[in-house]
Amino acid sequence: MHTTDDPWQSRYATRTALMVPSEVRALFAVAARPEIISLAGGMPDVGALPTGVMADLVAALLTTHGKTALQYGTAQGDPSLRESICEVMSLEGVAADPDDVVVTVGSQQALDLVTRLFVDPGDTVVTEAPTYVTALAVFAAHQARVAQVEMDEEGVLPGALSETFARLAAQGRPAKLFYTIPTFHNPTGITMSARRRQEVLEVCRRARVLVLEDNPYGLLRYDGESLRPLRASAPDEVIYLGSFSKTLAPGLRVGWALAPPAVREKLVLAAESAMLSQSPLTQMTVDRYLRTQLWQAQLVETCTMYRSRRDAMLRALERYMPPGASWTVPQGGFFVWVSLPEPLDTKAMLDAAVAAGVAYVPGTGFYTGGRGRRELRLSFCYPTPEHVTEGVRRLAAVLQDAWEPLSAPHRIPVLSSR
Amino acid sequence: MHTTDDPWQSRYATRTALMVPSEVRALFAVAARPEIISLAGGMPDVGALPTGVMADLVAALLTTHGKTALQYGTAQGDPSLRESICEVMSLEGVAADPDDVVVTVGSQQALDLVTRLFVDPGDTVVTEAPTYVTALAVFAAHQARVAQVEMDEEGVLPGALSETFARLAAQGRPAKLFYTIPTFHNPTGITMSARRRQEVLEVCRRARVLVLEDNPYGLLRYDGESLRPLRASAPDEVIYLGSFSKTLAPGLRVGWALAPPAVREKLVLAAESAMLSQSPLTQMTVDRYLRTQLWQAQLVETCTMYRSRRDAMLRALERYMPPGASWTVPQGGFFVWVSLPEPLDTKAMLDAAVAAGVAYVPGTGFYTGGRGRRELRLSFCYPTPEHVTEGVRRLAAVLQDAWEPLSAPHRIPVLSSR
Repeated sequence: MHTTDDPWQSRYATRTALMVPSEVRALFAVAARPEIISLAGGMPDVGALPTGVMADLVAALLTTHGKTALQYGTAQGDPSLRESICEVMSLEGVAADPDDVVVTVGSQQALDLVTRLFVDPGDTVVTEAPTYVTALAVFAAHQARVAQVEMDEEGVLPGALSETFARLAAQGRPAKLFYTIPTFHNPTGITMSARRRQEVLEVCRRARVLVLEDNPYGLLRYDGESLRPLRASAPDEVIYLGSFSKTLAPGLRVGWALAPPAVREKLVLAAESAMLSQSPLTQMTVDRYLRTQLWQAQLVETCTMYRSRRDAMLRALERYMPPGASWTVPQGGFFVWVSLPEPLDTKAMLDAAVAAGVAYVPGTGFYTGGRGRRELRLSFCYPTPEHVTEGVRRLAAVLQDAWEPLSAPHRIPVLSSR
Repeated sequence: MHTTDDPWQSRYATRTALMVPSEVRALFAVAARPEIISLAGGMPDVGALPTGVMADLVAALLTTHGKTALQYGTAQGDPSLRESICEVMSLEGVAADPDDVVVTVGSQQALDLVTRLFVDPGDTVVTEAPTYVTALAVFAAHQARVAQVEMDEEGVLPGALSETFARLAAQGRPAKLFYTIPTFHNPTGITMSARRRQEVLEVCRRARVLVLEDNPYGLLRYDGESLRPLRASAPDEVIYLGSFSKTLAPGLRVGWALAPPAVREKLVLAAESAMLSQSPLTQMTVDRYLRTQLWQAQLVETCTMYRSRRDAMLRALERYMPPGASWTVPQGGFFVWVSLPEPLDTKAMLDAAVAAGVAYVPGTGFYTGGRGRRELRLSFCYPTPEHVTEGVRRLAAVLQDAWEPLSAPHRIPVLSSR
């Protein structure tokens, strides 16, 4: 599909060369084939949504408030929705003023606009290693350098984070942002521990680095105790991104940023030049849904659905994965991160997996610089538990095929019996 | 509202200092007061829209296609809508392939993304003098220089345009884009003549400058013969921006770019990192509306409504404006551009106008570099014909008050009789 002959080739901005098709996105087209069980995409399952209720709600909205819903809104977003968003954030312990919220086209646009506000070409954004694919695309499109910092099972390593900040400051270009997904991290599923949150905040505070906290999954917890977002402890040092894409519906494209007042003022200007305003219709739809429906009960149902899929995935991994493989055990969100022993290569193995009827995302997309060939991301959010199980079984068979010629001399009985 | 104490002041990107609140937007808050007749805003009147029909349509859509409408879409946009968009463009003589259309959050986002693709800091974008306020904000946010080229009643002057391109090329930084609103121009209401269109295209072709044609008003013609967009004659040399904001409803935030294939590929990548996808719900709503409703008949009604407002404005200008004032006579769109004789100052006069119960936009917002103090933009799109007439009457009274002390010695009888 790529056109080679482009008469405007010499006219593009420097950044445009850095906008390259994501290998993850390209994979989604393949994964959408009906014979494939996709453990690749991070699409929520909207099948459980009460579409009849939504239909009535939007129809009522257009009938009674059509003139407002169909007109331009303000760049900052609908005031009533901004109040509702503060109610939603309060569930996780974030106290916020609706004046400091900016409504965006999903939290993706908020990520893009915050990057626009802070990142000059050549500036460095620090992220976890690995991190969200399309965040890397946003940083690349702004010609940012990205420094990735290792994680353990409690989240990013504070010592390594501190060293990275110090190294960048010593080079005369202090980190502009620390981008983090502390809760049910994409792609690893790891949740930063309470103690680690305080340590990380302290490291950022000392280095005077602004934190960009992305929290699309926070309310999708299936067990364990809820942890307060970083923003709850550090309102002046964190820009918080939230979204209704995972808890309600991505098709409404409603997300938000909560920012310190001075940053928020600039964010509104950036939003205005980027799109004038987000859709009042979809904003009012979300607001009406939150104000008239038992959405917290709906959220409990949603969590029940995803919990059973996560459980199916973890059971299937235990049952089918060959020894030597390891994986994370997420308490919420959409993802499990699998690590394989040398010399398996998850990128090279993908074709065989697709041929065997299962898709996953190779680890390389989540890192800068080609790392991640021994890792892969599995999503349990979209397929039924039965499909999750079958998908993991197919994947394990592919792994075993790739493994056998390598490990044959040391073949382990427990494997051969499967 | 501006916070002075910003601990992150030193961390912003260079471009952020160039994002400043628009004086036009600030004015809209004032103009929204009920006692003010606003001839300032360019908001379409959505009051005539069949909101009941829209309500039924969205409800049916959610009931039958809820899973698709509420899920993520593709970055390029809904395929069925892209077909419908090509039908809409064909009304103006543009032949296009749905594959070359990218759906955006209004055409504003398309403008932002195209600028992102082509403009490095310090690059020059050429525009008409004057031009659309928020296009200037977009160019500023991308650290572009803007060179504005004079217009006459047939549109931008080809000789001056050619000279500007030559001057920029001689400086070693050829113009990256020529941004133009050829039909019912914002703010002047001028329509580029057929002959001028060919001359302008030829000038751009010779200079190898890509044309960015913004056409939100093209289908809102009240008299005269329809002219084909620039894109119709030069598919490889024009990026065309369209919108449903003026012909249907801005609250759906559906616009588009039509671009040569190689540019379109990059535009899709830019859209993906900027927002993942536009809302399938609002896209499918527009598509369903176009496919099931007599939208061309609705468009005729819309034009009838706006024509009567334009006529009211032109009649009121004839009746009330003091001699020495001149104005454009638009064949469509939303705007009339008024020029006043020296030494009247439309920016200085605005407070008095608001005190007299009428708002307009001073000319300065549409130029770079402080020009435009003798000019102002009047919008006839939103108020009723009666309000348009009364608004112009109030404005004329303010002009006369400002004028009288200046012109008293030469006072013209016809003025004193009003």
